[in-house]
Amino acid sequence: MMRFSTLLKNPADWMVGHGAETSVVLTSRVRLARNLHDVPFPGWARKRQREEILKQVKEKVEHIPAMRDGFSHELSDLDQLQKHVLVERHLISREQAARNEGSGSVVNRKQTLSLMINEEDHLRIQAIRPALQLKEAYQLALSVDQFLEEKLNFAYHSRWGYLTACPTNLGTGMRASSMLHLPGLVLSEQIGQVLKGISKMGLAVRGIYGEGTESMGNLYQISNQSTLGESEDAILSRLDRVIGDVARYELQAREKIMETNPLKVRDQIGRAVGILGYAHIITSKEALNYLSMLRLGADIGILEPEVKEICDRLFMETQPAHLQWRSGNKLSPESRDAIRAKMIGDQLQKVLVPAINILEENTNNSKSDS
Amino acid sequence: MMRFSTLLKNPADWMVGHGAETSVVLTSRVRLARNLHDVPFPGWARKRQREEILKQVKEKVEHIPAMRDGFSHELSDLDQLQKHVLVERHLISREQAARNEGSGSVVNRKQTLSLMINEEDHLRIQAIRPALQLKEAYQLALSVDQFLEEKLNFAYHSRWGYLTACPTNLGTGMRASSMLHLPGLVLSEQIGQVLKGISKMGLAVRGIYGEGTESMGNLYQISNQSTLGESEDAILSRLDRVIGDVARYELQAREKIMETNPLKVRDQIGRAVGILGYAHIITSKEALNYLSMLRLGADIGILEPEVKEICDRLFMETQPAHLQWRSGNKLSPESRDAIRAKMIGDQLQKVLVPAINILEENTNNSKSDS
Repeated sequence: MMRFSTLLKNPADWMVGHGAETSVVLTSRVRLARNLHDVPFPGWARKRQREEILKQVKEKVEHIPAMRDGFSHELSDLDQLQKHVLVERHLISREQAARNEGSGSVVNRKQTLSLMINEEDHLRIQAIRPALQLKEAYQLALSVDQFLEEKLNFAYHSRWGYLTACPTNLGTGMRASSMLHLPGLVLSEQIGQVLKGISKMGLAVRGIYGEGTESMGNLYQISNQSTLGESEDAILSRLDRVIGDVARYELQAREKIMETNPLKVRDQIGRAVGILGYAHIITSKEALNYLSMLRLGADIGILEPEVKEICDRLFMETQPAHLQWRSGNKLSPESRDAIRAKMIGDQLQKVLVPAINILEENTNNSKSDS
Repeated sequence: MMRFSTLLKNPADWMVGHGAETSVVLTSRVRLARNLHDVPFPGWARKRQREEILKQVKEKVEHIPAMRDGFSHELSDLDQLQKHVLVERHLISREQAARNEGSGSVVNRKQTLSLMINEEDHLRIQAIRPALQLKEAYQLALSVDQFLEEKLNFAYHSRWGYLTACPTNLGTGMRASSMLHLPGLVLSEQIGQVLKGISKMGLAVRGIYGEGTESMGNLYQISNQSTLGESEDAILSRLDRVIGDVARYELQAREKIMETNPLKVRDQIGRAVGILGYAHIITSKEALNYLSMLRLGADIGILEPEVKEICDRLFMETQPAHLQWRSGNKLSPESRDAIRAKMIGDQLQKVLVPAINILEENTNNSKSDS
């Protein structure tokens, strides 16, 4: 079995290095909710029942070939920081992070598949792929679903489909989403209109960590609202079409604003470079927002192409839990902001600011003219 | 006689290059209000009377040895931009800039003496010196006053002193002020308390362009409120003592905050470096605020000492009228903000950012990933 530190040391397969195709759509994610027949949902089950379900499901899950040598843990064995790291990496949900006994998580080595046991449902199968690959992500999740379906008795109703703890997941039990980077629509002030259009299509738009979280770094998550009355294929096709449209609007917006107001774009990117390169205190929200501008700069050819990969890595590594894990201990928000600034500055100096003439920390520190 | 362009090409003698002594107190200014006996004040005089006064006073003023080869003009001969430039350089007042026929201004070559004819009073004699040199500035103004007193009949009342158009100038007719740079008191949030203390001493605190202007760039102007009931020496001594105290508080605040929260100071200075070095659009207010941080950085040894002189020059050169004069024509605020950013960036690159890897404006301009 994989150790937590090994999991963290490696970026997930979908996190970095996918070139132009992730210019707008960073990742695609599909999760399937499944429950065991004749067993109470986790929220209603007693602790002993949950532990039994966990044991039973986990055993089957660990035998899936794709999950071999993966990371498998009960939530009660993880500390707050580890849980928080898994949430930031989208490998467990915020809901699951709040659970302990009788709840478990299994993640494959590439971190493209993650199975949550006894979250809201008995089982949630999640697959993540880079770029706009909803159907591919679905296929990946489906392969796990089909493997398990032979071994576990899933609650399924011929008319209602898969039964779930919350009625909003009833039917397909499928929630599919993509994470989009939309700085062009934000800079050109078209984002409000586009988001409104998406809502009208019966899709949901959320911030970077899902329901109830605000948008940061111009990152938006678009997902299906309804799980019932349509086939998985129909839902995925509609979502795929809308997300493809939004991605095209974004590219058009970038092109348009570079034609009509290149100075504004260069100013925003330049300021982001300057602040990330020279600040000594940076919050994670600020980091995401400025890294977003750098990523845009690399995408539209104002900054070196290498900047994009650095941004994608820093999007994750500058998040509070990742930052603390990396520095080996829990840190106060103040220390995090200082370490974050230094980490970003060090990374960016390689590509952006080869020679900063700010004198070193330890020289002339308290010298003051009188 | 000096041409306007020559005046503008050269910095005023008090503007740059006075080292550590201008670390807090940038300049000291004294102006004396004088009026001719038995002639209506400018606000009450008819146009013909004003023109006669102007002619009479100007002739005498131009004969003062210190004013030889200076800049002498009637306000009606100056366009709006030229007037605005003189206001930014503190050589005429905003009130005088609004006047035309019958109002004139004479400035000496070093720009340390400036005489306004038919502003609010018939004559205002202003002397400017670098650093905290109120008494020296007064001596300079006084020498002109004494020269003219022999040639012109000033309105003087044995009990009330010099008679002035506005009763708030009655008596000495003297307004003395210093411009202070107080980033340490602002960063350590002590500024409010210090300004309150100054008001209680019967002194006035104002923004960079005097009455009714807000503070920008952490620049504050401290001056005497009352002109009556005290000798010039008493007023100057009190002002000198209070300003000296404020300067010491500022230096203590800088030292204290570098001891208790050096990261905050370095963050503010670093961000200012980054934004000024990389932004493409900068308003004059923003420029002053960030240049203030750079100047602090040079004063406390975080940035190269050369930065200070660059800041002092840019404080003036980035102001709207100076910027437009330099580029040879009236500009829209948008163009000004772009030219300002470029001017500052170019200046700072020499000392701060020797190699910016932002690709050049004309290459890959509209390249966009698809």
